[in-house]
Amino acid sequence: MIKETVVYIDEAIVRANIRNMKEKARKHQKLLRPHFKTHQSAEIGQWFWDEGIKSCAVSSFKMADYFATAGWSDIMIAFPLNPALLDEYACLAQKISLQLFLSDENSLQALSKLKQPVEVFIELDTGYKRSGIDVNKTELLKQLIHRIKAETPHTFRGFAVHAGETYQAHSEKEILDISVYNQKVFSKLKQEFSALIISYGDTPSIMLSDSFEEIDELRPGNFVFFDYMQYQLGSCSLDDVGMHVDCPLVAVYPDDHRAVIHGGAVHLSKEAATVQGKPFYGLAIITDEHGCRKNIGYLESLSQEHGIVRFNEMANINLKPGESVRIIPVHSCLVADIAEHYTEVSSGRIISKF
Amino acid sequence: MIKETVVYIDEAIVRANIRNMKEKARKHQKLLRPHFKTHQSAEIGQWFWDEGIKSCAVSSFKMADYFATAGWSDIMIAFPLNPALLDEYACLAQKISLQLFLSDENSLQALSKLKQPVEVFIELDTGYKRSGIDVNKTELLKQLIHRIKAETPHTFRGFAVHAGETYQAHSEKEILDISVYNQKVFSKLKQEFSALIISYGDTPSIMLSDSFEEIDELRPGNFVFFDYMQYQLGSCSLDDVGMHVDCPLVAVYPDDHRAVIHGGAVHLSKEAATVQGKPFYGLAIITDEHGCRKNIGYLESLSQEHGIVRFNEMANINLKPGESVRIIPVHSCLVADIAEHYTEVSSGRIISKF
Repeated sequence: MIKETVVYIDEAIVRANIRNMKEKARKHQKLLRPHFKTHQSAEIGQWFWDEGIKSCAVSSFKMADYFATAGWSDIMIAFPLNPALLDEYACLAQKISLQLFLSDENSLQALSKLKQPVEVFIELDTGYKRSGIDVNKTELLKQLIHRIKAETPHTFRGFAVHAGETYQAHSEKEILDISVYNQKVFSKLKQEFSALIISYGDTPSIMLSDSFEEIDELRPGNFVFFDYMQYQLGSCSLDDVGMHVDCPLVAVYPDDHRAVIHGGAVHLSKEAATVQGKPFYGLAIITDEHGCRKNIGYLESLSQEHGIVRFNEMANINLKPGESVRIIPVHSCLVADIAEHYTEVSSGRIISKF
Repeated sequence: MIKETVVYIDEAIVRANIRNMKEKARKHQKLLRPHFKTHQSAEIGQWFWDEGIKSCAVSSFKMADYFATAGWSDIMIAFPLNPALLDEYACLAQKISLQLFLSDENSLQALSKLKQPVEVFIELDTGYKRSGIDVNKTELLKQLIHRIKAETPHTFRGFAVHAGETYQAHSEKEILDISVYNQKVFSKLKQEFSALIISYGDTPSIMLSDSFEEIDELRPGNFVFFDYMQYQLGSCSLDDVGMHVDCPLVAVYPDDHRAVIHGGAVHLSKEAATVQGKPFYGLAIITDEHGCRKNIGYLESLSQEHGIVRFNEMANINLKPGESVRIIPVHSCLVADIAEHYTEVSSGRIISKF
């Protein structure tokens, strides 16, 4: 009997995911700077630290402050700098090595007003069209680098790219093509601008590619938990997914192969994947006698607190209200953000988070 | 200069929305049982109490407990009962008048195990296909009513319906048609089953309809704040929307009419509306010299922390990083759920919530 919706983390799987990524970075002799926006937890941060990883990226000032307090001293805020936070950046940069993103030309003025030295990455847009300066604007990039050096007390470190367009890819080949294209771009940049670091993010590119010649620093985030979206993209197997959500089953309609769970947008977010042309919000699974995960249905719609699960073979499932349904989320980062804390699945221990 | 994303509530607008709904219920001589899942705040609950409204609905046991502690003594949990929570229901029902939903036939067993008397509504599905017993299963309904009376210590009060299919409607007429259809269904039920209450939810039906003959209790929620979705459905004007989100502007790309705000899925949720065939996540507005709201652009995509705003006429807007963009959310309930608290826009007062 399950009283409420519980977000579970499997420590053994998560630690294995961290180790595998560390091995990949070591093999290619790249710095691993994992993006901690996925887990947002000092305790899970410690699992990285245990593997010798001492650098991280975050997505907001507050998250940087949280991990600095937890002992991290090399933090990149992988988000355009906010000119309203100069006092906060200055205060944090007195305590740790802080890296900020310059993502548009307007914000240079803010950087020159920030008196405490930080390290600056110019965020580049190589095709995702979210944030960053268009990589084709070579003259603008030259000017900005010159002005960072001439007009601010900061160190220019290099370029940062998040190739988020991989999440829209329809095949592994398409993801690899994006990675190859970006590395050609980086090669050209390195000829143009000497002695710089290329920091490169996104889990799909880094999981699927095995060539990072033009990249200095790997900045994936989602790999720590993975999720259905990564499974669909080919970045992981279902057994690599280190997060699931147990949801109380509250109503069953066998005629319709349909059940209602207490697992809605407030638990799982409205992030949808597409399967056979239909949006869906999570994968219902059971674990078979060999410990393997088996898909038993799809979470086909979500409202605020309700989730509607369509089972593949209702007759064989025979679940009743008061039992629970295990859901692999579509996007673990958003489930993690909503969760108040995690529960470690083997020990039942509560893992606190930001 | 704006340091972080702020969820604003306009008390004057929200109190006017509450008064208007109260007037509508009074005019039609119906009980108003507002759904508090939208605001989740004891202070905003007090604004209802100030208007003489003493009944409410919520969407989880925990929320019922929160409002009971805040002094509410007539609470409906408008969500299928969870058989794992019988002790919790019993404890709460000793303190307040508690109404629970029986939403499938399996859960009758749980109701018979619950020894503390509560009031029971059978949740009906009149076409939404989320939760509730198919309204056409008259024999099953008869059996369940008989068994509630014979096998449990509880009082059968009537039927509850949430006509959530109105949110999929493409015109006001379609919403009114759903309302007319449901009332025909209710009329038939009332002939079949005497002395029962029909409790009916959903803001669009109740805002657009002016005929509630077969309904006894109105259970709308979203009207307290409204949002873009309600505006698009015709339930409200833009000036009736009592919530907006101010987001720091962090990067501007004039060539593209595009800007990046610190306002992502973790602030606004991934709930999307559709405009001209494209999904969008919020309306960027300014308030003109007459106090009227004017659309200046759309939030066209969201990632975890980034929001991408496409402005209508970039040249005339001239916003810079460090300023802010005001967003009318697509679905205020989900923004409210994510928010840690609200800020009252005129006074700057913090309004706490569940």
